Amino acid sequence: MKTVLITGSTSGIGLGIAREFAKTKQYNIVFNGLETNGKEIAESIGKEFGISTIFHGANLMYPEQIYDLANTAINTYGKVDVLINNAGIQYVSPVEDFPDEKWNAIISINLSSAFYLTKAVWKKMKEQRFGRIINIASAHGLVASEFKSAYVASKHGIVGFTKTIALEGAPFNITANAICPGYVKTPLVEKQIDDQAKAHGISREEVISKVMLYKQAVKEFIPVETLGQLALFLASESATTITGTAIPVDGGWNAQ
Amino acid sequence: MKTVLITGSTSGIGLGIAREFAKTKQYNIVFNGLETNGKEIAESIGKEFGISTIFHGANLMYPEQIYDLANTAINTYGKVDVLINNAGIQYVSPVEDFPDEKWNAIISINLSSAFYLTKAVWKKMKEQRFGRIINIASAHGLVASEFKSAYVASKHGIVGFTKTIALEGAPFNITANAICPGYVKTPLVEKQIDDQAKAHGISREEVISKVMLYKQAVKEFIPVETLGQLALFLASESATTITGTAIPVDGGWNAQ
Amino acid sequence: MKTVLITGSTSGIGLGIAREFAKTKQYNIVFNGLETNGKEIAESIGKEFGISTIFHGANLMYPEQIYDLANTAINTYGKVDVLINNAGIQYVSPVEDFPDEKWNAIISINLSSAFYLTKAVWKKMKEQRFGRIINIASAHGLVASEFKSAYVASKHGIVGFTKTIALEGAPFNITANAICPGYVKTPLVEKQIDDQAKAHGISREEVISKVMLYKQAVKEFIPVETLGQLALFLASESATTITGTAIPVDGGWNAQ
Amino acid sequence: MKTVLITGSTSGIGLGIAREFAKTKQYNIVFNGLETNGKEIAESIGKEFGISTIFHGANLMYPEQIYDLANTAINTYGKVDVLINNAGIQYVSPVEDFPDEKWNAIISINLSSAFYLTKAVWKKMKEQRFGRIINIASAHGLVASEFKSAYVASKHGIVGFTKTIALEGAPFNITANAICPGYVKTPLVEKQIDDQAKAHGISREEVISKVMLYKQAVKEFIPVETLGQLALFLASESATTITGTAIPVDGGWNAQ
Repeated sequence: MKTVLITGSTSGIGLGIAREFAKTKQYNIVFNGLETNGKEIAESIGKEFGISTIFHGANLMYPEQIYDLANTAINTYGKVDVLINNAGIQYVSPVEDFPDEKWNAIISINLSSAFYLTKAVWKKMKEQRFGRIINIASAHGLVASEFKSAYVASKHGIVGFTKTIALEGAPFNITANAICPGYVKTPLVEKQIDDQAKAHGISREEVISKVMLYKQAVKEFIPVETLGQLALFLASESATTITGTAIPVDGGWNAQ
Repeated sequence: MKTVLITGSTSGIGLGIAREFAKTKQYNIVFNGLETNGKEIAESIGKEFGISTIFHGANLMYPEQIYDLANTAINTYGKVDVLINNAGIQYVSPVEDFPDEKWNAIISINLSSAFYLTKAVWKKMKEQRFGRIINIASAHGLVASEFKSAYVASKHGIVGFTKTIALEGAPFNITANAICPGYVKTPLVEKQIDDQAKAHGISREEVISKVMLYKQAVKEFIPVETLGQLALFLASESATTITGTAIPVDGGWNAQ
Repeated sequence: MKTVLITGSTSGIGLGIAREFAKTKQYNIVFNGLETNGKEIAESIGKEFGISTIFHGANLMYPEQIYDLANTAINTYGKVDVLINNAGIQYVSPVEDFPDEKWNAIISINLSSAFYLTKAVWKKMKEQRFGRIINIASAHGLVASEFKSAYVASKHGIVGFTKTIALEGAPFNITANAICPGYVKTPLVEKQIDDQAKAHGISREEVISKVMLYKQAVKEFIPVETLGQLALFLASESATTITGTAIPVDGGWNAQ
Repeated sequence: MKTVLITGSTSGIGLGIAREFAKTKQYNIVFNGLETNGKEIAESIGKEFGISTIFHGANLMYPEQIYDLANTAINTYGKVDVLINNAGIQYVSPVEDFPDEKWNAIISINLSSAFYLTKAVWKKMKEQRFGRIINIASAHGLVASEFKSAYVASKHGIVGFTKTIALEGAPFNITANAICPGYVKTPLVEKQIDDQAKAHGISREEVISKVMLYKQAVKEFIPVETLGQLALFLASESATTITGTAIPVDGGWNAQ
């Protein structure tokens, strides 16, 4: 059995990716998130797919909690084979009003936490000559949208970080890749559609194609399953020569 | 059964990709190539995996032969679901001595043939609301090496072409993506290793890591199986939101 | 005096760039274009700025005419110090109806002509240890728009070509760079604004900001003067370390 | 007179850029840096070129010092027309040993300080409908080198930040661009050449072309004058449509 550690995996994209890994029955899963019922979520996935799971509620703002998360994973399963840095937060504001503390929280959680976790699991990956680091960046890891200065900076930053550790990991069969999703349909987004449809007095379909997905050529949300399957492929032994990439899964956003 | 048409599939990368599609037993395969035993190769794969295959020997320099290839595929199987533009040629020379006819052959085969084939299969893809166009570009679709002006131009060109048809195909569930391999181990390359080792009086290992793969961080050739598996993933129904991308499979070449 | 050869310089962007070079009074200018009064345009610029100019009406579809253009320039002025590949044509159509002859004309004029000219002027540049090749690509050298498959392919292609010859030229103080403009205000575009305003029953301002420039964040056309000044900077001796780049002048188009 | 604020301008690249601005005699210059004789440097440039200069010794690790720097500039000259975020630090280490405090210092100084300064000068730029923000990133804002995880992350991050504020500034004639230098010859680098030549027992020329500049095709250091001239061009009124770019000045590094 391999072990995968996924940050922010008690909801949204992280949970979706966790389910794809769980389906293969070939991974122990280390869950992380701020949901108060995180432990139950981990246990329920474990039971559903007959795999071993644990939960750690580290707040990724704080290095010491991050290191505790990594150490708990390694103490439980002996190593982390696949690290998926998925947790992220967003804040939207014109740059002149962007709160300093929001900037710092976004940089810490979206970017620096990946550094701490990579550092913490690297030694074991190097020893066993196998490691897969998958950073869930964003279409905003490659291009920008206005009023998201911290988010775009953090996501470009993690793309740069990904390339660096890809080069460092190359002699040890440690690969590092970034997945750059467009708009993903999560329960949070689902609710926003209804709210915006009501607010603008337009249909749900129009909210989706003209408001939310106007930068995507494909007028569909990115399914979490697609992200999970791509992550599984990148995690496989046969993907050892795919490294240092930033792969858009964004319905053509970056092509235009 | 779906139908995949792969150009340049009687040897090297194209044949490797064809075998990955064959293994799934879910595709009819249209082979193409200049090998004189192309028909036997197609039949042998068909027999090995119990699938239907045909061969067409179109020379991709010539539009009328390309259109005949596409029409033969459509007449035989009713449509082409997946088009893989893989055929390519190379020529290495300083720009001041680069022969005009080599420039034109490379642009025609590596770039324009993809246009003709896309045009020829598009209508059916659009009608059935499903199409997958996968262009085998190169790491040289994203960056350059000296003395390969025509090749690099053609491969950047096909990346641009890919993005355009991705946008045009988006409303019809037609996706288009480019795969950008580094150095792939084909029988041709295998022979070059021995030749260079002899010529330089160094070991095969040194030829590989210091001469051939010096731009890759991962000092291994790209396995054709990896390219085939990525192509299969891009061809799947669940990859409908992955479009307009140029995905490096290059051992970190583009990350540095 | 240095000599600059600018293709497509009897109108639009090329003429604008020529005027910026003329203003410095430090360049002989070789004009090229299909305007029937090309000779008069060249003479008039020569007189206005007190510089030497010639005109050659090569149709860039045809290699022999291109070589004659280069030879005429070299025979007249002894060398070409700065080559600006600016001539380009466009055709807009869905890929399934895109005429083969339009594809070929666009690839020939927008891409292959730059190869022929580069090849023809390279030897002299190499001998004198100074050369500047500036390719006027487009925002479409970096990203796509639908229905412009040939144009986008040709412009990505020339970006790739630029990178290759940048590498080849590095030991000889020959640099190669691509300038990637957004929408430039030329007399042709000026007329389109009026036509579209009439057709859609909207104001000229709305045509500009919402129709023509909707991909630019800066809702102004790119002035030809800006392109000319950037070209002058790239042509200068002090830009010897700027090479292989593709510089957007596109009002933020590529940033989003 | 316009006012330019340049961080890290009491030595190296920043000082070189300051001198190019000083030469035009059209800018007041706000110097910043940790050199103990920063005040003398500012005064000496002011005297040499007959312009007004001030110095502020803000340590860019600390937001309150950064805000004080911006306020001092605005209180002295009424506004900042051109902001050049140039200050940066580097640390080289494998990721598994990379000290947490070095990561945080690099992210703070190379990335977050640009956010604080942009925020602080934005309102005045918006009011006067003119602003130019120029971020001195690095070739490492676009690609990676091993053992520089924090630096590469911070430089990619600032490229993303640049794109975002370019979009936000577009309606107000505020542009934002990143300059991405390769290896620049500064006094610090000069000393390293001698040290490495001695250490490896090879010539200075070999240190330069094979060790320091092995990723550049042009085997020359980037002159600070070139960076200064490019910055001046980007700062000019005529560059209003150049925004959101990341321009390599790297001797072809990114082209390969």
